[in-house]
Amino acid sequence: MMRPKIVLFGDSITEQSIKENGWGVPLANTYSRRADVLVRGYGGYNTRWAMFLLHHLFPLDSTTPPIATTIFFGANDAVLLGRTGERQHVPIEEFKENLRKFVRHLKECSPTMQIVLITPPPICEEGRLAYAISIYGEKATKVPERTNEVTGQYANSCVEVAKEMGVWYINLWSKMQETDGWRTKYLSDGLHLTAEGNAVVYEEVIKVFNEAGLSADNLPFDFPHHSKIDSEHPERAFRQNACDVPL
Amino acid sequence: MMRPKIVLFGDSITEQSIKENGWGVPLANTYSRRADVLVRGYGGYNTRWAMFLLHHLFPLDSTTPPIATTIFFGANDAVLLGRTGERQHVPIEEFKENLRKFVRHLKECSPTMQIVLITPPPICEEGRLAYAISIYGEKATKVPERTNEVTGQYANSCVEVAKEMGVWYINLWSKMQETDGWRTKYLSDGLHLTAEGNAVVYEEVIKVFNEAGLSADNLPFDFPHHSKIDSEHPERAFRQNACDVPL
Repeated sequence: MMRPKIVLFGDSITEQSIKENGWGVPLANTYSRRADVLVRGYGGYNTRWAMFLLHHLFPLDSTTPPIATTIFFGANDAVLLGRTGERQHVPIEEFKENLRKFVRHLKECSPTMQIVLITPPPICEEGRLAYAISIYGEKATKVPERTNEVTGQYANSCVEVAKEMGVWYINLWSKMQETDGWRTKYLSDGLHLTAEGNAVVYEEVIKVFNEAGLSADNLPFDFPHHSKIDSEHPERAFRQNACDVPL
Repeated sequence: MMRPKIVLFGDSITEQSIKENGWGVPLANTYSRRADVLVRGYGGYNTRWAMFLLHHLFPLDSTTPPIATTIFFGANDAVLLGRTGERQHVPIEEFKENLRKFVRHLKECSPTMQIVLITPPPICEEGRLAYAISIYGEKATKVPERTNEVTGQYANSCVEVAKEMGVWYINLWSKMQETDGWRTKYLSDGLHLTAEGNAVVYEEVIKVFNEAGLSADNLPFDFPHHSKIDSEHPERAFRQNACDVPL
């Protein structure tokens, strides 16, 4: 039995999910021997640029589309015009339409795929300015390239698209701000995630996957646990379907 | 461009490689955006049982065989007859022949695949006994189910097969014992790896991959770094082959 795939599609916050303490690591471990967690995170990408990848990453003719995909963009789309990084800016209406296209395409790939839209995390503007100074020193910008308010508008749009299209969502922007000290507790540079911030994403993703019927316990091992192997007749454990039920 | 695959095939020491501090995590991160690291570790398996998986995990008709595979067995084959866990024991000659079959099969899958045989780590017999007591208390066995000496014979056999068949190898059994305090520095329960033990495996695997021409720098990104995208003409960066050279 081949393992199904879970794909994490997004920007740097997804790309970094496979780093030490990243949210993709415990996710991959949770689905150990049951599903492959594939990271498709592209630092700096907005939804407009990610659109060019869509058919490559999720070909319509695939016989093994993912059983679940997280779509985690918006942090770069929400960069402000007229500030550092404005080349990454995508107008909010186009952002929404791009998310709709992503969802429509994935549904076409597989009508049973569980699709999870994740909003960008909140922004700590002071953290962004401190980060700019750490990189550019005196030449650093004095105004942040992202604001929490505008990123919140993109987050709301993301939730709207999810509701409109009937897919799962995680409002990370709101969720993180419920906790005192979120600015430094969850964000390392005002945007990217600390170990604790990554843990929040992992917990929220697992919560949604469980609700969607994709809890790890519901997925069978690809091959039997060694305790199920009769050492006198090992072939019996490997007969077709011998491990189609969770062990 | 689709990412190539690197497969980690083995027993529990491979299965646990995707846990926090596991050797698979920094490996996956090193090849981020360049190759997928797929864990095919099966706790408790010996080479005899793993043989049943071979054609499923590495189908001969695959159009996308892995570019590299690590084969990391022996820790269970080397369990002693007449001791706890003797059902896992595989005679050393059969162990060698099984490894040969693995290598032959992978070469048939892809003549260009880089194949790396990894020997089992050394055994700390006191660590195994302490572990047994922690699980079974007074009923724990008084003699270890594995000895460092016998595991060393399996490790040597593994190296012999690698030399005989012209594939890469890592003599982890020897390597770890070069360091003072290896018994507790590298082993958590006399067999499985601590964070530092995992780091040794990671470093050794990377060393071999680099020698084999598979250093991450040599592999292209599947899609361009965002700095290569012209925001006025993003399509240019995504033309076929635009990212076929390392960025």
